[in-house]
Amino acid sequence: MAVLNVDLGSRSYPIYVGPGLLSREDLYHRHIAAQEVVVVSDETVAPLYLDGLLASLPGFNVTCHILPDGEEHKTLETLSTLFDTMIAAPCSRETSLIALGGGVVGDIAGFAAACYQRGIGFIQVPTTLLAQVDSAVGGKTAVNHPLGKNMIGAFYQPACVIADTDTLSTLDGRQLSAGIAEVVKYGVIRDPTFFKWLEQNMEALCRCDNPAIEHVIVECCRNKAELVAADEEERAERALLNLGHTFGHAIETAVGYGQWLHGEAVAVGMVLAAELSCRLGWLAADDLVRIRELLSRAGLPVSPPKNIAVEEFLLHMSRDKKVARSRIRLVLLEGIGRAKLVTDYPDEALTEVLASAVA
Amino acid sequence: MAVLNVDLGSRSYPIYVGPGLLSREDLYHRHIAAQEVVVVSDETVAPLYLDGLLASLPGFNVTCHILPDGEEHKTLETLSTLFDTMIAAPCSRETSLIALGGGVVGDIAGFAAACYQRGIGFIQVPTTLLAQVDSAVGGKTAVNHPLGKNMIGAFYQPACVIADTDTLSTLDGRQLSAGIAEVVKYGVIRDPTFFKWLEQNMEALCRCDNPAIEHVIVECCRNKAELVAADEEERAERALLNLGHTFGHAIETAVGYGQWLHGEAVAVGMVLAAELSCRLGWLAADDLVRIRELLSRAGLPVSPPKNIAVEEFLLHMSRDKKVARSRIRLVLLEGIGRAKLVTDYPDEALTEVLASAVA
Repeated sequence: MAVLNVDLGSRSYPIYVGPGLLSREDLYHRHIAAQEVVVVSDETVAPLYLDGLLASLPGFNVTCHILPDGEEHKTLETLSTLFDTMIAAPCSRETSLIALGGGVVGDIAGFAAACYQRGIGFIQVPTTLLAQVDSAVGGKTAVNHPLGKNMIGAFYQPACVIADTDTLSTLDGRQLSAGIAEVVKYGVIRDPTFFKWLEQNMEALCRCDNPAIEHVIVECCRNKAELVAADEEERAERALLNLGHTFGHAIETAVGYGQWLHGEAVAVGMVLAAELSCRLGWLAADDLVRIRELLSRAGLPVSPPKNIAVEEFLLHMSRDKKVARSRIRLVLLEGIGRAKLVTDYPDEALTEVLASAVA
Repeated sequence: MAVLNVDLGSRSYPIYVGPGLLSREDLYHRHIAAQEVVVVSDETVAPLYLDGLLASLPGFNVTCHILPDGEEHKTLETLSTLFDTMIAAPCSRETSLIALGGGVVGDIAGFAAACYQRGIGFIQVPTTLLAQVDSAVGGKTAVNHPLGKNMIGAFYQPACVIADTDTLSTLDGRQLSAGIAEVVKYGVIRDPTFFKWLEQNMEALCRCDNPAIEHVIVECCRNKAELVAADEEERAERALLNLGHTFGHAIETAVGYGQWLHGEAVAVGMVLAAELSCRLGWLAADDLVRIRELLSRAGLPVSPPKNIAVEEFLLHMSRDKKVARSRIRLVLLEGIGRAKLVTDYPDEALTEVLASAVA
């Protein structure tokens, strides 16, 4: 088992990574304050791993709540049903909430933990690659609004993250690929050595081989923990983690939540960001090709759906959270491993990139 | 104008108290970060004071959202309509939200500011006595759940509080009395000198005379600021501010939100807490009489509605936020000005006090 630390002063917490962690009773005991626990999972993950988790919680008074599966259910309404369960239990301010599942479960359950009685203890047990390398780490929680992704949420840090690599064995190929999109992101924004490693080991990663997969999770969590510790509330460098996300969120919103997986939309978003960077003369054409090819080898899409008009694309982008003083703030690239936050790009260049992508 | 400071390190903020502050452009300018502002008010307050506030915001790009009036609308659904307006505007992470109104407006709007894009800037402009002395100060924001008051919320501090005492002139007598309940609370829990002052000046306060009213607001805010600075997230002494609130919330939930004003329910709750303290031999009978009489002179109820069964009362109390390790945690009294947090009272005493109150 590897242990990484997210260094946030009094709110610091460990990330545990390795096989067989679901059954490590000691980890749960260490981070649960009182007797009452609520476990939140979804219809896909619960049949696979809920019993295993519950077996690690003997002696606790556990209430379970199973959410419908998929991004389209990441809404205030779904959140409200979880609150109904928690109040009926009844959960107190001392209850701990455990999120068992992928990014959607972690986002909803984390936001519920942030809001329930103004905040209760919370443990992330991510079961998808995307959640293990990205969404479960760093304290971003949220639900969607019909007009914008992750518009309603909180920065709220867990007491720990328990990433059991065994749970990845049941991921279907599409979910695994979606996670790899966020993996590639870390290489592109700040870790050229890791990017090169991915170019050499993508096939092992796609087969979910150990030790490749554990290495990947540890490297991603290390990168993310550094960025989060430096800038918890995303006022500066943490925003680099949004590479491809403003484009990606626009795709997810335009096609309807749940149609594209988040990681698929982010993969296309990274390609669009790289294309814009290339058009502006900041990124070498060779590097654009390397990014696009690596994502393709992971089984990810590299161009947006053709039925989104450029105006619609821009409208959704302008509603995203990364808007500053009426400008869409983008993460662009000066090289592989060198990203920067930009608002002063020429609008025509953005429009041209989108027009050529959906043509 | 009096200025008090809530000392919370990097999140410290001023409370401005005095007449004519609604039109003090400089105060708003000092605390608004960017051009975009959303003003949230309700159907009662907006016709009276919205134009005055807007006149103080020249040059800003202002969106208004008017909520229905009353505690029964302090729900996730109402919050959702506010998010619709903010996303359509569109508001960004740099938008400032101004809450213009009483406790309900401040609680909903403050929670919206806490959640919108994971947190935006926020100014409280309380227009009721209750909001000026209590709910607008200290960063508690929330909405209700059908089964429990303020169950869903956040600790989220404003950039400043602007308490214009002129706005109290349009309060009806019932609303003013409800505010006085929270005023009396500060005297009872920690300020016997202030309690005595209230005994001597209750008539002036009920007429909303200056300088009595300004003195009261400053004294209450000073007391609250001290407690909040010592314990922002209510892990210890801040909980004393909940005197009467567990009883009060049970009444509000039992009779249906909006039937009783929050301050009315708190007044009865304080009397019940004093009666229990008296029955346990901690509080002198004379002090119980003084508390009950002072609340009566303010035009407040001092006994609960007769149609709540004791079991129902206890059930609602057990669902309140102050439950710790399955015990209802109560604020009880050892004297006027000496409150303490208690879980080890005999259950029979609580049951007897409730039974005799609803008999």
